[in-house]
Amino acid sequence: MPDNMREYIELINKNLDKFLKITYPQEIFESMRYSVLAEGKRLRPVMCLESCRIFGGKIEDAIPTACAIEMLHAQSLIHDDLPCMDNDDFRRGKPTNHKAFSEATAVLAGDALLTLAPQIIIQQSENLDAQVKIKLVEQYCIAAGAFGLIAGQIVDIQSEGQKISPKTLEFIHTHKTADLFKLALKAGAIIAKADEKIIKAMDDLGQCLGFAFQICDDILDETSSFEKMGKTLGKDKDAQKSTYTALFGVKKARSEVICLLNKAHDIISKNNIKSGILEEIIKGIQERSNS
Amino acid sequence: MPDNMREYIELINKNLDKFLKITYPQEIFESMRYSVLAEGKRLRPVMCLESCRIFGGKIEDAIPTACAIEMLHAQSLIHDDLPCMDNDDFRRGKPTNHKAFSEATAVLAGDALLTLAPQIIIQQSENLDAQVKIKLVEQYCIAAGAFGLIAGQIVDIQSEGQKISPKTLEFIHTHKTADLFKLALKAGAIIAKADEKIIKAMDDLGQCLGFAFQICDDILDETSSFEKMGKTLGKDKDAQKSTYTALFGVKKARSEVICLLNKAHDIISKNNIKSGILEEIIKGIQERSNS
Repeated sequence: MPDNMREYIELINKNLDKFLKITYPQEIFESMRYSVLAEGKRLRPVMCLESCRIFGGKIEDAIPTACAIEMLHAQSLIHDDLPCMDNDDFRRGKPTNHKAFSEATAVLAGDALLTLAPQIIIQQSENLDAQVKIKLVEQYCIAAGAFGLIAGQIVDIQSEGQKISPKTLEFIHTHKTADLFKLALKAGAIIAKADEKIIKAMDDLGQCLGFAFQICDDILDETSSFEKMGKTLGKDKDAQKSTYTALFGVKKARSEVICLLNKAHDIISKNNIKSGILEEIIKGIQERSNS
Repeated sequence: MPDNMREYIELINKNLDKFLKITYPQEIFESMRYSVLAEGKRLRPVMCLESCRIFGGKIEDAIPTACAIEMLHAQSLIHDDLPCMDNDDFRRGKPTNHKAFSEATAVLAGDALLTLAPQIIIQQSENLDAQVKIKLVEQYCIAAGAFGLIAGQIVDIQSEGQKISPKTLEFIHTHKTADLFKLALKAGAIIAKADEKIIKAMDDLGQCLGFAFQICDDILDETSSFEKMGKTLGKDKDAQKSTYTALFGVKKARSEVICLLNKAHDIISKNNIKSGILEEIIKGIQERSNS
Protein backbone atom coordinates (compact mmCIF):
# COMPACT_ATOMS: atom_id res chain seq x y z
CA MET A 1 0.00 0.00 0.00
CA PRO A 2 1.37 3.41 -0.94
CA ASP A 3 1.92 5.78 1.97
CA ASN A 4 3.28 8.89 0.42
CA MET A 5 2.53 11.05 -2.59
CA ARG A 6 5.33 9.60 -4.74
CA GLU A 7 4.13 6.04 -4.20
CA TYR A 8 0.55 7.02 -5.00
CA ILE A 9 1.67 8.65 -8.24
CA GLU A 10 3.74 5.60 -9.20
CA LEU A 11 0.78 3.32 -8.56
CA ILE A 12 -1.44 5.47 -10.76
CA ASN A 13 1.11 5.75 -13.57
CA LYS A 14 1.70 2.00 -13.58
CA ASN A 15 -2.01 1.34 -13.93
CA LEU A 16 -2.64 4.04 -16.53
CA ASP A 17 0.09 2.38 -18.57
CA LYS A 18 -1.59 -1.00 -18.10
CA PHE A 19 -5.07 0.27 -19.04
CA LEU A 20 -3.76 1.94 -22.20
CA LYS A 21 -2.07 -0.94 -23.98
CA ILE A 22 -1.32 -0.18 -27.60
CA THR A 23 -3.32 -2.23 -30.06
CA TYR A 24 -4.54 -1.73 -33.64
CA PRO A 25 -5.15 0.98 -34.84
CA GLN A 26 -1.97 2.09 -33.06
CA GLU A 27 -2.19 5.84 -33.68
CA ILE A 28 -5.30 6.32 -31.58
CA PHE A 29 -3.78 4.50 -28.61
CA GLU A 30 -0.44 6.30 -29.02
CA SER A 31 -2.27 9.61 -29.06
CA MET A 32 -4.26 8.72 -25.92
CA ARG A 33 -1.10 7.55 -24.16
CA TYR A 34 0.78 10.68 -25.21
CA SER A 35 -1.57 12.91 -23.23
CA VAL A 36 -2.63 10.63 -20.39
CA LEU A 37 0.90 9.49 -19.52
CA ALA A 38 2.47 12.96 -19.85
CA GLU A 39 4.03 14.02 -16.58
CA GLY A 40 1.47 15.44 -14.22
CA LYS A 41 0.68 15.92 -10.56
CA ARG A 42 -2.07 13.24 -10.68
CA LEU A 43 -3.93 15.26 -8.04
CA ARG A 44 -7.36 13.97 -9.01
CA PRO A 45 -6.60 10.23 -8.99
CA VAL A 46 -4.55 10.62 -5.79
CA MET A 47 -7.56 12.30 -4.15
CA CYS A 48 -9.78 9.44 -5.31
CA LEU A 49 -7.51 6.74 -3.86
CA GLU A 50 -6.98 8.67 -0.64
CA SER A 51 -10.68 9.37 -0.15
CA CYS A 52 -11.36 5.64 -0.52
CA ARG A 53 -8.65 4.82 2.04
CA ILE A 54 -9.84 7.46 4.53
CA PHE A 55 -13.34 6.00 4.65
CA GLY A 56 -12.20 2.43 5.07
CA GLY A 57 -12.11 1.17 1.48
CA LYS A 58 -9.28 -0.74 -0.16
CA ILE A 59 -7.06 1.48 -2.32
CA GLU A 60 -6.81 -1.24 -4.98
CA ASP A 61 -10.58 -1.16 -5.46
CA ALA A 62 -10.38 2.53 -6.39
CA ILE A 63 -7.55 2.22 -8.92
CA PRO A 64 -9.70 1.79 -12.07
CA THR A 65 -11.90 4.74 -11.10
CA ALA A 66 -8.90 6.91 -10.19
CA CYS A 67 -7.33 6.15 -13.59
CA ALA A 68 -10.66 6.83 -15.33
CA ILE A 69 -10.78 10.27 -13.73
CA GLU A 70 -7.23 11.04 -14.90
CA MET A 71 -8.26 9.95 -18.41
CA LEU A 72 -11.23 12.32 -18.29
CA HIS A 73 -8.89 15.11 -17.16
CA ALA A 74 -6.52 14.38 -20.08
CA GLN A 75 -9.50 14.28 -22.49
CA SER A 76 -10.66 17.72 -21.39
CA LEU A 77 -7.16 19.13 -21.90
CA ILE A 78 -6.80 17.58 -25.39
CA HIS A 79 -10.08 19.10 -26.57
CA ASP A 80 -9.55 22.44 -24.75
CA ASP A 81 -6.20 22.85 -26.52
CA LEU A 82 -7.69 22.40 -30.04
CA PRO A 83 -7.34 25.30 -32.49
CA CYS A 84 -11.13 25.91 -32.38
CA MET A 85 -10.99 26.18 -28.56
CA ASP A 86 -8.03 27.69 -26.69
CA ASN A 87 -5.60 26.98 -29.56
CA ASP A 88 -2.67 26.04 -27.35
CA ASP A 89 0.61 24.68 -28.74
CA PHE A 90 2.17 23.48 -25.50
CA ARG A 91 0.96 21.51 -22.51
CA ARG A 92 3.01 20.04 -19.68
CA GLY A 93 6.16 21.19 -21.54
CA LYS A 94 5.35 19.19 -24.69
CA PRO A 95 3.53 20.00 -27.93
CA THR A 96 -0.22 19.64 -27.44
CA ASN A 97 -1.87 16.49 -28.76
CA HIS A 98 -3.06 17.99 -32.06
CA LYS A 99 0.45 19.38 -32.66
CA ALA A 100 2.13 16.03 -31.97
CA PHE A 101 -0.45 14.05 -33.97
CA SER A 102 -3.16 15.82 -35.99
CA GLU A 103 -6.35 17.68 -35.19
CA ALA A 104 -8.46 14.74 -36.36
CA THR A 105 -6.51 12.32 -34.17
CA ALA A 106 -6.73 14.68 -31.18
CA VAL A 107 -10.52 14.94 -31.52
CA LEU A 108 -10.81 11.16 -31.78
CA ALA A 109 -8.36 10.46 -28.94
CA GLY A 110 -10.46 12.70 -26.70
CA ASP A 111 -13.64 10.92 -27.78
CA ALA A 112 -12.04 7.53 -27.18
CA LEU A 113 -10.91 8.50 -23.67
CA LEU A 114 -14.41 9.73 -22.77
CA THR A 115 -15.82 6.22 -23.21
CA LEU A 116 -12.72 4.21 -22.28
CA ALA A 117 -12.85 5.73 -18.79
CA PRO A 118 -16.27 4.31 -17.79
CA GLN A 119 -15.41 1.07 -19.64
CA ILE A 120 -12.42 0.67 -17.30
CA ILE A 121 -14.52 1.42 -14.22
CA ILE A 122 -16.93 -1.33 -15.30
CA GLN A 123 -14.47 -3.95 -16.54
CA GLN A 124 -11.56 -3.55 -14.14
CA SER A 125 -13.28 -2.98 -10.79
CA GLU A 126 -13.44 -6.67 -9.93
CA ASN A 127 -14.41 -6.28 -6.30
CA LEU A 128 -17.14 -3.67 -6.74
CA ASP A 129 -20.77 -4.68 -7.04
CA ALA A 130 -22.98 -3.50 -9.90
CA GLN A 131 -24.76 -0.90 -7.74
CA VAL A 132 -21.49 0.81 -6.85
CA LYS A 133 -20.28 0.71 -10.45
CA ILE A 134 -23.52 2.30 -11.64
CA LYS A 135 -23.16 5.11 -9.08
CA LEU A 136 -19.56 5.72 -10.17
CA VAL A 137 -20.37 5.80 -13.88
CA GLU A 138 -23.36 8.07 -13.22
CA GLN A 139 -21.19 10.54 -11.27
CA TYR A 140 -18.56 10.31 -14.00
CA CYS A 141 -21.10 11.14 -16.73
CA ILE A 142 -22.54 14.09 -14.80
CA ALA A 143 -19.06 15.55 -14.18
CA ALA A 144 -17.89 14.99 -17.77
CA GLY A 145 -20.91 16.26 -19.66
CA ALA A 146 -23.22 19.20 -20.27
CA PHE A 147 -23.98 19.50 -16.55
CA GLY A 148 -20.27 19.49 -15.65
CA LEU A 149 -17.02 20.14 -17.52
CA ILE A 150 -18.72 20.97 -20.83
CA ALA A 151 -21.01 23.53 -19.20
CA GLY A 152 -17.95 25.28 -17.76
CA GLN A 153 -16.06 25.14 -21.03
CA ILE A 154 -18.85 26.56 -23.19
CA VAL A 155 -19.56 29.47 -20.83
CA ASP A 156 -15.80 30.11 -20.67
CA ILE A 157 -15.64 30.34 -24.48
CA GLN A 158 -18.75 32.51 -24.67
CA SER A 159 -17.30 34.88 -22.07
CA GLU A 160 -14.11 35.68 -23.98
CA GLY A 161 -13.68 39.40 -24.46
CA GLN A 162 -16.66 40.14 -22.22
CA LYS A 163 -16.92 41.55 -18.74
CA ILE A 164 -18.58 38.81 -16.74
CA SER A 165 -20.07 38.79 -13.28
CA PRO A 166 -18.40 37.07 -10.32
CA LYS A 167 -21.32 34.62 -10.44
CA THR A 168 -20.53 33.61 -14.02
CA LEU A 169 -16.85 33.23 -13.15
CA GLU A 170 -17.85 30.99 -10.25
CA PHE A 171 -19.96 28.90 -12.65
CA ILE A 172 -17.00 28.48 -15.03
CA HIS A 173 -14.48 27.60 -12.30
CA THR A 174 -16.92 25.27 -10.55
CA HIS A 175 -17.63 23.25 -13.67
CA LYS A 176 -14.33 23.45 -15.52
CA THR A 177 -12.20 22.65 -12.49
CA ALA A 178 -13.98 21.89 -9.23
CA ASP A 179 -16.34 19.27 -10.73
CA LEU A 180 -13.42 16.88 -11.34
CA PHE A 181 -12.04 17.42 -7.82
CA LYS A 182 -15.51 16.70 -6.43
CA LEU A 183 -15.86 13.62 -8.63
CA ALA A 184 -12.50 12.27 -7.41
CA LEU A 185 -13.27 12.75 -3.71
CA LYS A 186 -16.86 11.50 -3.97
CA ALA A 187 -15.94 8.46 -6.06
CA GLY A 188 -13.43 7.33 -3.42
CA ALA A 189 -16.11 7.68 -0.74
CA ILE A 190 -18.66 5.79 -2.88
CA ILE A 191 -16.21 2.89 -3.37
CA ALA A 192 -15.65 2.80 0.40
CA LYS A 193 -19.46 2.76 0.83
CA ALA A 194 -19.39 5.90 2.96
CA ASP A 195 -22.76 7.40 3.90
CA GLU A 196 -24.51 10.31 2.16
CA LYS A 197 -23.34 12.85 4.75
CA ILE A 198 -19.73 11.98 3.97
CA ILE A 199 -20.32 12.09 0.22
CA LYS A 200 -21.83 15.56 0.61
CA ALA A 201 -18.79 16.62 2.66
CA MET A 202 -16.49 15.36 -0.11
CA ASP A 203 -18.50 17.39 -2.59
CA ASP A 204 -17.93 20.52 -0.46
CA LEU A 205 -14.24 19.70 -0.03
CA GLY A 206 -13.82 19.23 -3.79
CA GLN A 207 -15.47 22.60 -4.39
CA CYS A 208 -13.03 24.37 -2.01
CA LEU A 209 -9.91 22.63 -3.32
CA GLY A 210 -10.91 22.87 -6.97
CA PHE A 211 -11.80 26.52 -6.73
CA ALA A 212 -8.59 27.34 -4.84
CA PHE A 213 -6.58 25.36 -7.40
CA GLN A 214 -8.17 27.29 -10.29
CA ILE A 215 -7.54 30.67 -8.67
CA CYS A 216 -3.87 29.61 -8.34
CA ASP A 217 -3.88 28.82 -12.06
CA ASP A 218 -5.19 32.31 -12.74
CA ILE A 219 -2.48 33.80 -10.50
CA LEU A 220 0.24 31.74 -12.17
CA ASP A 221 -0.99 32.71 -15.63
CA GLU A 222 -0.10 36.28 -14.65
CA THR A 223 3.02 35.77 -12.56
CA SER A 224 4.86 32.63 -13.71
CA SER A 225 6.97 31.70 -16.75
CA PHE A 226 6.83 29.16 -19.60
CA GLU A 227 9.84 27.34 -18.12
CA LYS A 228 8.09 26.77 -14.81
CA MET A 229 4.67 25.87 -16.19
CA GLY A 230 5.40 24.08 -19.48
CA LYS A 231 2.71 26.01 -21.29
CA THR A 232 2.30 29.41 -22.89
CA LEU A 233 1.25 31.92 -20.24
CA GLY A 234 -0.56 35.23 -20.34
CA LYS A 235 -2.83 33.65 -22.96
CA ASP A 236 -5.91 34.11 -20.81
CA LYS A 237 -5.21 37.82 -20.57
CA ASP A 238 -4.52 38.05 -24.32
CA ALA A 239 -7.75 36.22 -25.12
CA GLN A 240 -9.53 38.56 -22.70
CA LYS A 241 -10.61 35.59 -20.66
CA SER A 242 -12.25 36.43 -17.41
CA THR A 243 -10.02 35.11 -14.68
CA TYR A 244 -10.23 35.58 -10.94
CA THR A 245 -7.19 37.86 -11.05
CA ALA A 246 -8.69 39.93 -13.89
CA LEU A 247 -11.85 40.49 -11.84
CA PHE A 248 -10.32 40.96 -8.40
CA GLY A 249 -6.52 41.38 -8.71
CA VAL A 250 -3.71 39.11 -7.49
CA LYS A 251 -3.85 40.25 -3.84
CA LYS A 252 -7.53 39.43 -3.37
CA ALA A 253 -6.98 36.18 -5.31
CA ARG A 254 -4.32 35.10 -2.81
CA SER A 255 -6.49 35.91 0.19
CA GLU A 256 -9.41 34.01 -1.37
CA VAL A 257 -7.16 30.94 -1.73
CA ILE A 258 -6.34 31.15 1.99
CA CYS A 259 -10.03 31.47 2.83
CA LEU A 260 -10.96 28.43 0.69
CA LEU A 261 -8.16 26.31 2.13
CA ASN A 262 -9.28 27.23 5.66
CA LYS A 263 -12.76 26.02 4.73
CA ALA A 264 -11.18 22.81 3.42
CA HIS A 265 -9.41 22.33 6.77
CA ASP A 266 -12.71 22.86 8.59
CA ILE A 267 -14.42 20.15 6.54
CA ILE A 268 -11.53 17.77 7.18
CA SER A 269 -11.49 18.29 10.94
CA LYS A 270 -15.30 18.29 11.31
CA ASN A 271 -15.37 14.86 9.67
CA ASN A 272 -12.46 13.54 11.78
CA ILE A 273 -10.39 12.88 8.69
CA LYS A 274 -6.73 12.06 9.24
CA SER A 275 -4.89 12.36 5.96
CA GLY A 276 -1.30 13.41 5.41
CA ILE A 277 -1.94 13.24 1.67
CA LEU A 278 -4.83 15.74 1.78
CA GLU A 279 -2.69 18.02 3.99
CA GLU A 280 0.09 17.79 1.42
CA ILE A 281 -2.30 18.67 -1.42
CA ILE A 282 -3.62 21.67 0.51
CA LYS A 283 -0.06 22.80 1.30
CA GLY A 284 0.83 22.41 -2.39
CA ILE A 285 -2.07 24.65 -3.44
CA GLN A 286 -1.12 27.16 -0.75
CA GLU A 287 2.47 27.32 -2.00
CA ARG A 288 1.31 27.54 -5.61
CA SER A 289 -0.70 30.67 -4.83
CA ASN A 290 2.49 32.37 -3.61
CA SER A 291 4.61 31.53 -6.66
CA MET B 1 -47.43 0.01 -27.93
CA PRO B 2 -46.21 1.02 -31.38
CA ASP B 3 -46.88 -1.52 -34.10
CA ASN B 4 -45.49 0.06 -37.20
CA MET B 5 -42.38 1.94 -38.21
CA ARG B 6 -44.01 5.37 -38.05
CA GLU B 7 -45.22 4.82 -34.49
CA TYR B 8 -41.81 3.56 -33.42
CA ILE B 9 -40.17 6.66 -34.86
CA GLU B 10 -42.68 8.95 -33.14
CA LEU B 11 -42.06 7.23 -29.82
CA ILE B 12 -38.31 7.70 -30.21
CA ASN B 13 -38.57 11.34 -31.28
CA LYS B 14 -40.88 12.15 -28.38
CA ASN B 15 -38.41 10.68 -25.91
CA LEU B 16 -35.31 12.22 -27.51
CA ASP B 17 -37.05 15.56 -27.12
CA LYS B 18 -37.80 14.76 -23.47
CA PHE B 19 -34.24 13.66 -22.68
CA LEU B 20 -32.75 16.78 -24.28
CA LYS B 21 -34.51 19.55 -22.38
CA ILE B 22 -32.85 22.92 -22.83
CA THR B 23 -31.23 24.29 -19.71
CA TYR B 24 -28.34 26.67 -18.99
CA PRO B 25 -25.95 27.01 -20.80
CA GLN B 26 -28.53 26.92 -23.60
CA GLU B 27 -26.18 26.83 -26.59
CA ILE B 28 -24.78 23.41 -25.79
CA PHE B 29 -28.26 21.89 -25.46
CA GLU B 30 -29.50 23.66 -28.58
CA SER B 31 -26.54 22.32 -30.49
CA MET B 32 -27.14 18.77 -29.23
CA ARG B 33 -30.84 19.00 -30.08
CA TYR B 34 -30.07 20.41 -33.53
CA SER B 35 -28.27 17.25 -34.56
CA VAL B 36 -30.08 14.61 -32.53
CA LEU B 37 -33.58 15.79 -33.44
CA ALA B 38 -32.78 16.38 -37.13
CA GLU B 39 -34.99 14.24 -39.32
CA GLY B 40 -33.63 10.74 -39.62
CA LYS B 41 -34.65 7.17 -40.19
CA ARG B 42 -34.00 6.25 -36.53
CA LEU B 43 -32.98 2.78 -37.74
CA ARG B 44 -30.72 2.05 -34.78
CA PRO B 45 -33.16 2.94 -31.97
CA VAL B 46 -35.99 1.18 -33.83
CA MET B 47 -33.84 -1.96 -34.02
CA CYS B 48 -33.13 -1.69 -30.30
CA LEU B 49 -36.82 -1.40 -29.35
CA GLU B 50 -37.82 -4.17 -31.76
CA SER B 51 -35.09 -6.54 -30.58
CA CYS B 52 -36.32 -6.04 -27.01
CA ARG B 53 -39.91 -6.75 -28.06
CA ILE B 54 -38.96 -9.84 -30.11
CA PHE B 55 -37.29 -11.50 -27.13
CA GLY B 56 -40.11 -10.80 -24.72
CA GLY B 57 -39.02 -7.51 -23.14
CA LYS B 58 -41.16 -4.42 -22.66
CA ILE B 59 -40.54 -1.78 -25.31
CA GLU B 60 -40.76 1.00 -22.73
CA ASP B 61 -37.82 -0.50 -20.83
CA ALA B 62 -35.65 -0.13 -23.94
CA ILE B 63 -36.54 3.51 -24.69
CA PRO B 64 -33.67 5.17 -22.76
CA THR B 65 -31.12 2.83 -24.34
CA ALA B 66 -32.60 3.27 -27.82
CA CYS B 67 -32.39 7.05 -27.43
CA ALA B 68 -28.84 6.78 -26.08
CA ILE B 69 -27.82 4.87 -29.22
CA GLU B 70 -29.36 7.55 -31.44
CA MET B 71 -27.42 10.18 -29.45
CA LEU B 72 -24.20 8.26 -30.03
CA HIS B 73 -25.01 8.09 -33.74
CA ALA B 74 -25.59 11.87 -33.85
CA GLN B 75 -22.35 12.44 -31.91
CA SER B 76 -20.35 10.45 -34.43
CA LEU B 77 -21.87 12.46 -37.30
CA ILE B 78 -21.15 15.83 -35.61
CA HIS B 79 -17.48 14.98 -35.10
CA ASP B 80 -17.09 13.23 -38.48
CA ASP B 81 -18.36 16.36 -40.23
CA LEU B 82 -15.79 18.67 -38.57
CA PRO B 83 -13.35 20.54 -40.84
CA CYS B 84 -10.43 18.48 -39.48
CA MET B 85 -12.29 15.25 -40.37
CA ASP B 86 -14.56 14.93 -43.42
CA ASN B 87 -15.20 18.70 -43.59
CA ASP B 88 -18.86 18.41 -44.59
CA ASP B 89 -21.15 21.43 -44.82
CA PHE B 90 -24.48 19.61 -45.08
CA ARG B 91 -26.08 16.71 -43.25
CA ARG B 92 -29.68 15.54 -43.47
CA GLY B 93 -30.41 18.53 -45.71
CA LYS B 94 -29.28 21.10 -43.13
CA PRO B 95 -25.98 22.85 -42.40
CA THR B 96 -23.75 20.59 -40.32
CA ASN B 97 -23.51 21.32 -36.60
CA HIS B 98 -20.27 23.33 -36.78
CA LYS B 99 -21.76 25.42 -39.63
CA ALA B 100 -24.97 26.13 -37.71
CA PHE B 101 -23.15 26.81 -34.42
CA SER B 102 -19.34 26.93 -34.27
CA GLU B 103 -16.54 24.41 -34.40
CA ALA B 104 -15.96 24.76 -30.66
CA THR B 105 -19.64 24.19 -29.89
CA ALA B 106 -19.78 21.20 -32.26
CA VAL B 107 -16.81 19.55 -30.56
CA LEU B 108 -18.37 20.16 -27.14
CA ALA B 109 -21.87 19.05 -28.21
CA GLY B 110 -20.37 15.78 -29.42
CA ASP B 111 -18.48 15.35 -26.15
CA ALA B 112 -21.61 16.11 -24.16
CA LEU B 113 -23.67 13.54 -26.09
CA LEU B 114 -21.02 10.85 -25.53
CA THR B 115 -21.58 11.01 -21.77
CA LEU B 116 -25.23 12.03 -21.74
CA ALA B 117 -26.12 8.78 -23.52
CA PRO B 118 -24.91 6.41 -20.75
CA GLN B 119 -26.23 8.85 -18.14
CA ILE B 120 -29.70 8.42 -19.64
CA ILE B 121 -29.37 4.63 -19.71
CA ILE B 122 -28.50 4.72 -16.01
CA GLN B 123 -30.95 7.37 -14.79
CA GLN B 124 -34.00 6.74 -16.96
CA SER B 125 -34.17 2.93 -17.11
CA GLU B 126 -36.32 2.64 -14.01
CA ASN B 127 -37.25 -1.02 -14.43
CA LEU B 128 -33.80 -2.36 -15.23
CA ASP B 129 -31.59 -3.80 -12.52
CA ALA B 130 -28.01 -2.62 -11.99
CA GLN B 131 -26.52 -5.73 -13.64
CA VAL B 132 -28.41 -5.07 -16.87
CA LYS B 133 -27.53 -1.36 -16.83
CA ILE B 134 -23.84 -2.21 -16.40
CA LYS B 135 -23.96 -4.60 -19.38
CA LEU B 136 -25.67 -1.95 -21.51
CA VAL B 137 -23.21 0.80 -20.60
CA GLU B 138 -20.29 -1.59 -21.16
CA GLN B 139 -21.53 -2.49 -24.64
CA TYR B 140 -22.16 1.19 -25.33
CA CYS B 141 -18.59 2.13 -24.35
CA ILE B 142 -17.05 -0.64 -26.45
CA ALA B 143 -19.08 0.37 -29.52
CA ALA B 144 -18.40 4.10 -29.08
CA GLY B 145 -14.69 4.02 -28.37
CA ALA B 146 -11.27 2.98 -29.63
CA PHE B 147 -12.42 -0.62 -30.09
CA GLY B 148 -15.50 0.48 -32.06
CA LEU B 149 -16.54 3.61 -33.93
CA ILE B 150 -13.29 5.48 -33.28
CA ALA B 151 -11.20 2.58 -34.58
CA GLY B 152 -13.20 2.64 -37.82
CA GLN B 153 -12.97 6.40 -38.13
CA ILE B 154 -9.21 6.65 -37.61
CA VAL B 155 -8.42 3.88 -40.11
CA ASP B 156 -10.83 5.53 -42.56
CA ILE B 157 -8.94 8.83 -42.25
CA GLN B 158 -5.56 7.14 -42.53
CA SER B 159 -6.69 5.33 -45.67
CA GLU B 160 -7.60 8.44 -47.64
CA GLY B 161 -5.77 8.56 -50.95
CA GLN B 162 -4.42 5.05 -50.45
CA LYS B 163 -5.24 1.76 -52.06
CA ILE B 164 -6.47 -0.40 -49.21
CA SER B 165 -7.13 -4.10 -48.98
CA PRO B 166 -10.66 -5.55 -48.80
CA LYS B 167 -9.75 -6.60 -45.25
CA THR B 168 -9.04 -3.00 -44.22
CA LEU B 169 -12.26 -1.84 -45.87
CA GLU B 170 -14.12 -4.50 -43.90
CA PHE B 171 -12.48 -3.22 -40.70
CA ILE B 172 -13.61 0.35 -41.45
CA HIS B 173 -17.19 -0.59 -42.36
CA THR B 174 -17.51 -2.99 -39.43
CA HIS B 175 -16.46 -0.42 -36.87
CA LYS B 176 -17.79 2.80 -38.40
CA THR B 177 -21.21 1.41 -39.24
CA ALA B 178 -21.95 -2.16 -38.21
CA ASP B 179 -20.85 -1.71 -34.58
CA LEU B 180 -23.81 0.59 -33.90
CA PHE B 181 -26.27 -1.79 -35.58
CA LYS B 182 -24.86 -4.61 -33.47
CA LEU B 183 -25.08 -2.49 -30.32
CA ALA B 184 -28.74 -1.65 -31.02
CA LEU B 185 -29.80 -5.26 -31.62
CA LYS B 186 -27.74 -6.67 -28.75
CA ALA B 187 -28.90 -4.00 -26.29
CA GLY B 188 -32.55 -4.85 -26.97
CA ALA B 189 -31.83 -8.53 -26.34
CA ILE B 190 -29.90 -7.73 -23.13
CA ILE B 191 -32.82 -5.67 -21.81
CA ALA B 192 -35.16 -8.61 -22.60
CA LYS B 193 -32.70 -10.86 -20.73
CA ALA B 194 -32.23 -13.08 -23.77
CA ASP B 195 -29.54 -15.78 -23.51
CA GLU B 196 -25.98 -15.57 -24.84
CA LYS B 197 -26.83 -17.54 -28.00
CA ILE B 198 -29.42 -14.95 -28.95
CA ILE B 199 -27.09 -12.06 -28.16
CA LYS B 200 -24.47 -13.65 -30.43
CA ALA B 201 -27.11 -14.01 -33.17
CA MET B 202 -27.99 -10.32 -32.81
CA ASP B 203 -24.31 -9.50 -33.16
CA ASP B 204 -24.20 -11.44 -36.44
CA LEU B 205 -27.44 -9.86 -37.65
CA GLY B 206 -26.10 -6.38 -36.88
CA GLN B 207 -22.95 -7.16 -38.83
CA CYS B 208 -24.95 -8.20 -41.92
CA LEU B 209 -27.38 -5.28 -41.79
CA GLY B 210 -24.74 -2.69 -40.93
CA PHE B 211 -22.39 -3.86 -43.64
CA ALA B 212 -25.19 -3.96 -46.23
CA PHE B 213 -26.33 -0.49 -45.15
CA GLN B 214 -22.81 0.91 -45.54
CA ILE B 215 -22.35 -0.62 -49.00
CA CYS B 216 -25.64 1.09 -49.97
CA ASP B 217 -24.18 4.37 -48.70
CA ASP B 218 -21.17 3.81 -50.94
CA ILE B 219 -23.45 3.05 -53.91
CA LEU B 220 -25.57 6.14 -53.23
CA ASP B 221 -22.49 8.35 -52.91
CA GLU B 222 -21.81 7.45 -56.55
CA THR B 223 -25.31 7.32 -57.99
CA SER B 224 -27.62 9.68 -56.04
CA SER B 225 -28.06 13.45 -55.82
CA PHE B 226 -27.82 16.16 -53.15
CA GLU B 227 -31.60 16.65 -53.32
CA LYS B 228 -32.30 13.01 -52.50
CA MET B 229 -29.66 12.60 -49.81
CA GLY B 230 -29.45 16.02 -48.14
CA LYS B 231 -25.66 15.97 -48.15
CA THR B 232 -22.87 16.64 -50.60
CA LEU B 233 -22.19 13.50 -52.61
CA GLY B 234 -19.21 12.21 -54.54
CA LYS B 235 -17.09 13.53 -51.66
CA ASP B 236 -15.75 10.09 -50.85
CA LYS B 237 -14.48 9.74 -54.40
CA ASP B 238 -13.00 13.24 -54.35
CA ALA B 239 -11.24 12.56 -51.07
CA GLN B 240 -10.03 9.29 -52.57
CA LYS B 241 -11.75 7.40 -49.83
CA SER B 242 -11.78 3.70 -50.22
CA THR B 243 -15.38 2.66 -50.62
CA TYR B 244 -16.84 -0.70 -51.50
CA THR B 245 -17.79 0.61 -54.93
CA ALA B 246 -14.28 1.99 -55.52
CA LEU B 247 -12.78 -1.41 -54.73
CA PHE B 248 -15.33 -3.66 -56.44
CA GLY B 249 -17.64 -1.53 -58.63
CA VAL B 250 -21.39 -0.86 -58.29
CA LYS B 251 -22.51 -4.20 -59.75
CA LYS B 252 -20.57 -6.32 -57.31
CA ALA B 253 -21.64 -3.95 -54.50
CA ARG B 254 -25.31 -4.61 -55.29
CA SER B 255 -24.86 -8.37 -55.36
CA GLU B 256 -22.97 -8.23 -52.06
CA VAL B 257 -25.92 -6.39 -50.50
CA ILE B 258 -28.25 -9.19 -51.66
CA CYS B 259 -25.89 -11.78 -50.24
CA LEU B 260 -25.70 -10.00 -46.86
CA LEU B 261 -29.47 -9.54 -46.66
CA ASN B 262 -29.95 -13.26 -47.42
CA LYS B 263 -27.66 -14.04 -44.52
CA ALA B 264 -29.74 -11.70 -42.36
CA HIS B 265 -32.89 -13.59 -43.36
CA ASP B 266 -31.21 -16.87 -42.44
CA ILE B 267 -30.34 -15.61 -38.96
CA ILE B 268 -33.89 -14.37 -38.47
CA SER B 269 -35.53 -17.62 -39.51
CA LYS B 270 -33.03 -19.86 -37.68
CA ASN B 271 -33.90 -18.02 -34.46
CA ASN B 272 -37.65 -18.19 -35.11
CA ILE B 273 -37.91 -14.41 -35.11
CA LYS B 274 -41.18 -12.92 -36.31
CA SER B 275 -40.71 -9.24 -36.99
CA GLY B 276 -42.44 -7.11 -39.57
CA ILE B 277 -40.21 -4.23 -38.53
CA LEU B 278 -36.97 -6.12 -39.23
CA GLU B 279 -38.43 -7.25 -42.58
CA GLU B 280 -39.23 -3.63 -43.37
CA ILE B 281 -35.70 -2.52 -42.50
CA ILE B 282 -34.21 -5.25 -44.70
CA LYS B 283 -36.53 -4.28 -47.54
CA GLY B 284 -35.54 -0.64 -47.09
CA ILE B 285 -31.83 -1.49 -47.38
CA GLN B 286 -32.57 -3.66 -50.43
CA GLU B 287 -34.41 -0.80 -52.15
CA ARG B 288 -31.69 1.65 -51.22
CA SER B 289 -29.09 -0.45 -53.01
CA ASN B 290 -31.09 -0.12 -56.23
CA SER B 291 -31.47 3.68 -56.08
